[in-house]
Amino acid sequence: HTGQWSKKAIAEARKYGTPQVVATSEDKTFSYIPEIKTESFDPQADYVHITTNNTIYGTRIGPDRLPDTGNVPLVADMSSNILSEPYDVGKFGIIYAGAQKNIGPAGVTVVIVRKDLVGKTPDSVPTMLNYKTFADAGSMYNTPPCFAIYMAKLVFEWIKEQGGVAAVAEKNRRKSAILYNYLDDSKLFKATVAPEDRSLMNVPFVLPTDDLNASFIAEAKKEGLVTLKGHRTVGGMRASIYNAMPEEGVTKLVDFMARFEKDNG
Amino acid sequence: HTGQWSKKAIAEARKYGTPQVVATSEDKTFSYIPEIKTESFDPQADYVHITTNNTIYGTRIGPDRLPDTGNVPLVADMSSNILSEPYDVGKFGIIYAGAQKNIGPAGVTVVIVRKDLVGKTPDSVPTMLNYKTFADAGSMYNTPPCFAIYMAKLVFEWIKEQGGVAAVAEKNRRKSAILYNYLDDSKLFKATVAPEDRSLMNVPFVLPTDDLNASFIAEAKKEGLVTLKGHRTVGGMRASIYNAMPEEGVTKLVDFMARFEKDNG
Repeated sequence: HTGQWSKKAIAEARKYGTPQVVATSEDKTFSYIPEIKTESFDPQADYVHITTNNTIYGTRIGPDRLPDTGNVPLVADMSSNILSEPYDVGKFGIIYAGAQKNIGPAGVTVVIVRKDLVGKTPDSVPTMLNYKTFADAGSMYNTPPCFAIYMAKLVFEWIKEQGGVAAVAEKNRRKSAILYNYLDDSKLFKATVAPEDRSLMNVPFVLPTDDLNASFIAEAKKEGLVTLKGHRTVGGMRASIYNAMPEEGVTKLVDFMARFEKDNG
Repeated sequence: HTGQWSKKAIAEARKYGTPQVVATSEDKTFSYIPEIKTESFDPQADYVHITTNNTIYGTRIGPDRLPDTGNVPLVADMSSNILSEPYDVGKFGIIYAGAQKNIGPAGVTVVIVRKDLVGKTPDSVPTMLNYKTFADAGSMYNTPPCFAIYMAKLVFEWIKEQGGVAAVAEKNRRKSAILYNYLDDSKLFKATVAPEDRSLMNVPFVLPTDDLNASFIAEAKKEGLVTLKGHRTVGGMRASIYNAMPEEGVTKLVDFMARFEKDNG
């Protein structure tokens, strides 16, 4: 349980079963990824659910830190970091991701399901929430959201043109490093997430006081640097640097932060 | 039970309750609207469900032919004729409509729910299928499909510019009359739906033989008149003349039909 998305996944699972929280970072406002031990999983569990990137809290379970769940299918909400770096799809039972971060416009969801997991849903599950409905009909059981799918196609092509997800990951590591390096060196700004758990997509940071946070957000806006306000549940700032954000955007932000630090430090 | 949409509504209702079919036109391939008698409704029923327009079969339950369901809420799937003519919204418990016919791009659904019906769902209903979720959150519980909603706004404005739904209905009556009048006068073409049950949106028609149907569709295509093939479950032809179809489109089709009749009659 690493944030808002897992909270919702737990609440939803409770409607149909008896979810167990085997690890959580709720004690420190989800600012780290808790250790996930294989022995903590019930080997009879239907699935183990993780969120690979926590949008609000800026944490990430990277491709090399996936839990070993044995024979229990690993299910991942990858909404906020799919296509940001390569994950071994074979390690997952289900990957699902809303399109609106790295794929395309809001209104379409990508689901990758291991074939043997399709069709195990009880009859009480609504037709439109049964993956079998979509698997059997080539994702065209009903009129699909054509425009969103078309846009997703264009984004997939754009990713391929750059050299695929591996090349995009390289850019994302470079982009986020610019920001994290600055934050770690700064005497005024502070990154809120433990270094080993940091997201490549969402970089939360804080200033020493709420007044300075508010002043930074207002000044940044004048420079055209917007939507930097942290989620209301955590405060501070958050820079979302999804695939679509160019390195220049990050550099511009860091340059401004340096000026702000000079003026307010 | 008047076609594909009600068939799906019945199947889905069966997951949660015990739907009763009180009237159906299945005996004649759904080519008419069955008489719906008030006394056939169980006064204890949770709702009565109708489909106001049957896309595939070209039938319609017009605003003046809504069943009197007493105290039982009337629920309507209005996907394929919403905004085509004025309905008294106060007569319905729930109106729902996929956007993709008269509202905007596929991928957004409009739901109008009477306030007292919101929140009566059992806990087992998934959060995203509970109207209360959306009512409580101003339809922004999750990231909404912004592009589709924006397009819907433009379409609503376009309808207002024309004089509103009443003005659009006038156009739709004129458009469909051009086609139905031709069909009723024709010695070769035949409308498949009883006059009092005819849709303003979808006009199915047939020629005397399957060969002629196929030939008509092929010839029409050469004239730029496309997607005229009837649904695979009924065959023949179907002209869909949603709000977006101008009168000129209908006139062009009828002119071509007249030429075809002259050549093949």
